Amino acid sequence: MRGFISPERAARIHGVLSRRQTDVTLVMDNIWNPHNVSAILRSCDAFGLFRIHLYYTTEKWPEMGTKSSASAKKWIERVGHESAPEMLSGFKQAGMQVIRTGFSETAKPLYDFDFTKPTAVILSNEHRGASPELIDQVAEELYIPMQGMVQSLNVSVAAAVILYEMFSQRRRAGLLDTPALSPEELEALALEWSDK
Amino acid sequence: MRGFISPERAARIHGVLSRRQTDVTLVMDNIWNPHNVSAILRSCDAFGLFRIHLYYTTEKWPEMGTKSSASAKKWIERVGHESAPEMLSGFKQAGMQVIRTGFSETAKPLYDFDFTKPTAVILSNEHRGASPELIDQVAEELYIPMQGMVQSLNVSVAAAVILYEMFSQRRRAGLLDTPALSPEELEALALEWSDK
Repeated sequence: MRGFISPERAARIHGVLSRRQTDVTLVMDNIWNPHNVSAILRSCDAFGLFRIHLYYTTEKWPEMGTKSSASAKKWIERVGHESAPEMLSGFKQAGMQVIRTGFSETAKPLYDFDFTKPTAVILSNEHRGASPELIDQVAEELYIPMQGMVQSLNVSVAAAVILYEMFSQRRRAGLLDTPALSPEELEALALEWSDK
Repeated sequence: MRGFISPERAARIHGVLSRRQTDVTLVMDNIWNPHNVSAILRSCDAFGLFRIHLYYTTEKWPEMGTKSSASAKKWIERVGHESAPEMLSGFKQAGMQVIRTGFSETAKPLYDFDFTKPTAVILSNEHRGASPELIDQVAEELYIPMQGMVQSLNVSVAAAVILYEMFSQRRRAGLLDTPALSPEELEALALEWSDK
């Protein structure tokens, strides 16, 4: 049954959907820690992602029903994958540049990428790094420009910084001023979200 | 006794110190969760802060010896405070704008602030928000421009985003190209850091 929602909540839902970016996405490549998964989802919601991809081949499918997620999972479409070629060909068909986090000699700092283009960024497992099949098939690497003595950041912190850079570039380019979703998609989703 | 360090480590220490920003800082206003405190310190190191301030009046002094800090505390000068007027007059004497995180009607989004100016940002307690005496004395408020349905971010994620925006503005302005520390300070600190 359709729930009853206030005009304020309806307007809020409409506003959020009208800022959702459908052509940028993150891939969680076997991110292991459920707190990290939840925190990353929350940042995806905060910085306007519409959909994320979950590539789980070595780690078990992440629990996302924890309280700490503050229910961000309700507001982010999640697509599961077990096949790297299938996932990557989907990105290719969508015209997306595909980038993974990494530290090789050819890696470039986050701010050198143009995130106004359709983009998928692959975030790697906390301990083992990127899955070998993704290393093989994705050449572009980005790193967070760390200036300090400690050589690593928590993956959820790294994700937030990447998402904020994407958001900032798109904001400056005016991409947030016009909905990415079509009016029909937006209305259908608004109806669905009203029931959540 | 002076430890023996490799030329690579000496160069690394020198590089990190030459990028340390001495005129921007964070204040942890009674941040309670030790994981958050550790994660924030790590981000401060990563984005080039030299010094942070710990304002603890209601929460106990944070433990920072945990493994998860990855020893970031070794590389960040920490100044403790129990008096808001003393702390704030120190910032004033240093010519710093003082800004706190907040959500009132006059709060501005993060990217509207000029972080190339000397700046102190006060990060508030996870549950209670800013301490009342800091609300009274600090008018400027910033918020992270959240685009989603969930209304809050973890404080360590918020801190990382703020620090990254500071770093980005300063990088673009060329402020990272010249050391903020004097040659004498830098050499003295390099010697001290070599022993850590």
